[in-house]
Amino acid sequence: MVNVGADLFADAIEAQGIAVTRVAWRPPAGDQLALVTLLADQKVEEANKIAVERMLSAHPVIVDVRPAHEVIPALQKHKLLHAGPPIGWERMCGPMRGAVIGACIYEGWARDESEAVALAESGALNFEPCHHYNAVGPMAGITSPSMPVFVVEDKTHGNRTYSTLNEGLGKVLRFGAFGPEVIERLRWMQEVPGPALGRAIRALGGIDVRAIISQALQMGDECHNRNKAATSLFVRQVGAALVETGSSREETASVLRFIAGNDHFHLNPSMAAAKAITLAGAHVPRSSVVVTMARNGVDFGIRVSGLGDRWFIGPAQYIQGLYFAGFGPEDANADIGDSAITETSGVGAFAMAGAPAIVQFIGGSPSDALRYTREMYDITVASNPLFGIPSLDFQGVPTGIDIRQVCRLNMLPVINTGIAHRLPGVGQVGAGVVYPPMECFEKALAALKEDTYHE
Amino acid sequence: MVNVGADLFADAIEAQGIAVTRVAWRPPAGDQLALVTLLADQKVEEANKIAVERMLSAHPVIVDVRPAHEVIPALQKHKLLHAGPPIGWERMCGPMRGAVIGACIYEGWARDESEAVALAESGALNFEPCHHYNAVGPMAGITSPSMPVFVVEDKTHGNRTYSTLNEGLGKVLRFGAFGPEVIERLRWMQEVPGPALGRAIRALGGIDVRAIISQALQMGDECHNRNKAATSLFVRQVGAALVETGSSREETASVLRFIAGNDHFHLNPSMAAAKAITLAGAHVPRSSVVVTMARNGVDFGIRVSGLGDRWFIGPAQYIQGLYFAGFGPEDANADIGDSAITETSGVGAFAMAGAPAIVQFIGGSPSDALRYTREMYDITVASNPLFGIPSLDFQGVPTGIDIRQVCRLNMLPVINTGIAHRLPGVGQVGAGVVYPPMECFEKALAALKEDTYHE
Repeated sequence: MVNVGADLFADAIEAQGIAVTRVAWRPPAGDQLALVTLLADQKVEEANKIAVERMLSAHPVIVDVRPAHEVIPALQKHKLLHAGPPIGWERMCGPMRGAVIGACIYEGWARDESEAVALAESGALNFEPCHHYNAVGPMAGITSPSMPVFVVEDKTHGNRTYSTLNEGLGKVLRFGAFGPEVIERLRWMQEVPGPALGRAIRALGGIDVRAIISQALQMGDECHNRNKAATSLFVRQVGAALVETGSSREETASVLRFIAGNDHFHLNPSMAAAKAITLAGAHVPRSSVVVTMARNGVDFGIRVSGLGDRWFIGPAQYIQGLYFAGFGPEDANADIGDSAITETSGVGAFAMAGAPAIVQFIGGSPSDALRYTREMYDITVASNPLFGIPSLDFQGVPTGIDIRQVCRLNMLPVINTGIAHRLPGVGQVGAGVVYPPMECFEKALAALKEDTYHE
Repeated sequence: MVNVGADLFADAIEAQGIAVTRVAWRPPAGDQLALVTLLADQKVEEANKIAVERMLSAHPVIVDVRPAHEVIPALQKHKLLHAGPPIGWERMCGPMRGAVIGACIYEGWARDESEAVALAESGALNFEPCHHYNAVGPMAGITSPSMPVFVVEDKTHGNRTYSTLNEGLGKVLRFGAFGPEVIERLRWMQEVPGPALGRAIRALGGIDVRAIISQALQMGDECHNRNKAATSLFVRQVGAALVETGSSREETASVLRFIAGNDHFHLNPSMAAAKAITLAGAHVPRSSVVVTMARNGVDFGIRVSGLGDRWFIGPAQYIQGLYFAGFGPEDANADIGDSAITETSGVGAFAMAGAPAIVQFIGGSPSDALRYTREMYDITVASNPLFGIPSLDFQGVPTGIDIRQVCRLNMLPVINTGIAHRLPGVGQVGAGVVYPPMECFEKALAALKEDTYHE
């Protein structure tokens, strides 16, 4: 007896003592006519090939660290960038509200929480997604004008992308903490590590972040929730230049200690690099390749190469994973952050086969890590030869999520991620695995059919 | 048809068109009576348990960098330590002779090659194995009085072990180069990185090298021929202290650049740590656990816990592996160096399952890397829970080679290693996999039986 798809039938037959071979199959998702039409369209295939070739040829290099307002001129007083698709104060989740409050205090727009809340409620604050300015921020992703940001340049296509400096773990703004120690750290980052890193990186003529990711993927990182190798390689590469361009011995030592003390320091440059890779594949007419996946803690949004800057939205999901001691699912916020740009570019959970040690942090077993990567080849257009996984005989990471294959196989892209507490200021309470809502892909599929054949 | 052992029979039967299931089996090595007697001896089992428990509880920490003569007082004028079992000038291979010449020039005992050779031929030089002073040196392993050495202390048992600073690749003393740039680099290492690292490590109160190895094994290193993660973690850990204790900005930057520029910098502290681990297991009466494997380029020597300081010697073998462009087997020296102490302690080739990317350097495929580790469990007493391999579900590395199992299974410990050119001064020409000669283990087995039952 061979059973294809729904286990219900197999269970019933097995209960009668008959051996059943189960073949995994799920009915396709989305509009079936749109799916069949787009799957058969050679022009979509060709567009996807172009989009992914651009992604694979992108060459992100960290060229500078600058105050955000210098490189994103629109980022002026009372304007804040946030993670995920567009959202206003009234719908924001706890950790994002906390980060907004902290940013208002940090920028001097409010003296305390109540002034910041009043400012937000008055409508005076102007919120926009980081992605609208080619920036990406982990968790709440709040980026304010004075924060230093990594400037990553795609040397192949000339695009520039941005990401803030990682604050570390514990009480940090990106998890919605806004106490005095958070604000002080942000001000110190603005005064010391930001300028110091900018000087060192300029003196080095840039740091090849694509090369760091490539090496880190052979060193147990997947460059989303495991960034230990990339962080170590970054310190190793920037150390001498930090010393040579440092303003004092004490400051240089404090910067080195700050970076060395945070295994996730390199998450942010990796995210900016992933943004540069996906941006290179954007805006190819007819292409069904996903170029953005991002969450604001309430909504999950995707953008698709052939569909311009339109967001396709569904509800952010809850994460399955491991909780830190003293926390459980009742504490969890829904999925949040721009960090799913890593998976969109082919790393993160898509590269977990090379990062088996990550299961200590997000749960599961090393064989699960292998399985996640293997499955993703079914919904992607290509593999990236520059990002090889040793344990898969150096096969490249699966790259270029095709919304047609996601719907055809009813198989969602996997994302590994931190779990934020649902209240502002508590911080990270765990890490695990999460999926986007299928409706993002169904809506995008319908829109791509609409655009392609009815315009 | 089931065939156990020799393939000759299976081949003949298969040639007649009959299906054959092959079961690997080789006749035991060594004296069969000694083997059967020692395998049945419960006191050997108990002694091995003690030896390996001591190895697993060893806690090596880098506590200092000092001139060799300060920490090894016997190392005075005209005395040199070398890799492997004892050997004199007349039997030394090319790269070791080259390193001796370089060390004589570096120490000011000779002005040039001909003076150094005359000194060596006069019998005025006093050679002794590094291992006799709890030191270990990669390749030629020549250690002279003025060279700075890492001082590693086993915080559990109090032993101290030593290893020189790694010079980098290319023209370096350990491969027998002795040109002016080699001597200049050694003098600079004595004047700048040696004292700088000593100050920084003392200021840090030591660097937990066991913790670095443990992390590096989860980051694609096996800590013998892949040291990229360990080197990066070392830089990350020592960076701020180097800055704080540095004598000038230029010197600190030069030290950071020197370490960061050499993916193998951490080989030497890993070797000193491996020496500390194996030393902890030495001198347990009746134990059949190997505590030293070392090669001088001519002889391979092992020492066994229950057999004191006696060396059991056989001819050093030739390495199977990958050659650098322009070189081939005709250029290769036989197996050389103390670095097989890593395998003796449970890492190196024994941990290759966690370092699949190493096959790009030594040849073979990632599945070979898995197989090497898996096979070594058959000839070792325990696995080391502190050194877990993620891809093996965090199983610890196979630790404590038992000469009885090596002989019973006729299965030799695997070693991965660099290939030195047979002439002095050329340097590394490749890397690969090598085995000790079986006679070392056969001789040790006979000696252990002799000692145990006839004294």
